[in-house]
Amino acid sequence: MNKNFHEKRPDPKMRIRKLEQQDRDRIEEMVIASGNFNDVEIATALELVDDALEEGEKSGYIFAVLADEKEHASVHGYACYGPVPLTQGAWDLYWIVIDRAAQRKGLGRLLLEYVERDVIKRGGRMLLIETSSQETYSATIRFYETRGYHLEARLRNFYRIGDDKLVFQKELA
Amino acid sequence: MNKNFHEKRPDPKMRIRKLEQQDRDRIEEMVIASGNFNDVEIATALELVDDALEEGEKSGYIFAVLADEKEHASVHGYACYGPVPLTQGAWDLYWIVIDRAAQRKGLGRLLLEYVERDVIKRGGRMLLIETSSQETYSATIRFYETRGYHLEARLRNFYRIGDDKLVFQKELA
Repeated sequence: MNKNFHEKRPDPKMRIRKLEQQDRDRIEEMVIASGNFNDVEIATALELVDDALEEGEKSGYIFAVLADEKEHASVHGYACYGPVPLTQGAWDLYWIVIDRAAQRKGLGRLLLEYVERDVIKRGGRMLLIETSSQETYSATIRFYETRGYHLEARLRNFYRIGDDKLVFQKELA
Repeated sequence: MNKNFHEKRPDPKMRIRKLEQQDRDRIEEMVIASGNFNDVEIATALELVDDALEEGEKSGYIFAVLADEKEHASVHGYACYGPVPLTQGAWDLYWIVIDRAAQRKGLGRLLLEYVERDVIKRGGRMLLIETSSQETYSATIRFYETRGYHLEARLRNFYRIGDDKLVFQKELA
């Protein structure tokens, strides 16, 4: 049980909205600041942003952006998810990032619950999250477990030797 | 042990070459004739062909086409594979199809061995093959096992309820 994620009440002044053009720089900033991603991964995150800004949901990538409720609001996190091609109802959570400065406030939980509700609304029945077995992801993994995800599969040495791919899964109600 | 795959000697008059524009229709024909793929899957197979014809290897998809050695040669099968983004040396075999009329002649083995050698040459250390747990894939699965692949991961109910994703893996020498 992770107290940070579990007990904090989400800030009521937050809202979750669609991706906008001006979010791109802020997303880049948050992904870099997280310290979890290398240059190629950061470029990949931004490619998905660009695809979604250009093609909308046709890109296969849906974004949820977490921001303050006031005007000219700060963005504190985002999630990117989409249906897995060739499946009936399996969805992938590709990215979920909460800005370092806004962590431990229950915002990850708020955002993930939003994503789950949205996936259900769109006909999804399962949400998958792929992550790395590296030690730097251990807090992330505890967060997923607290939110009801279990380790469904492990691909040993997938990213590189000694770095496995973990696939977490949750069946959505 | 599957005798069909294991004991037949490959036809010496076959060669493996790059994808050419005129292969597109033949690939469509073979994928449909296999009887294993639905319309969306067939469209996906052809999208990869189109991407590779347009962008070459920059598309991320490498094709190996199995044809007779003579001029105006018939195409009997193909494979499509590529490096997995964000990994060091993991490769995916996306498609391998041998025409129904040319099966049980060791051609699948010939093609898969070519792919493995090519992946090693390009710095790959692991080949992954995703497939479905449906009964129609049981001969395919026996073929992979005979060629040294093992079931590395299973994602239950991935494609739809009752239809798991199986991930086969082989470490390349």
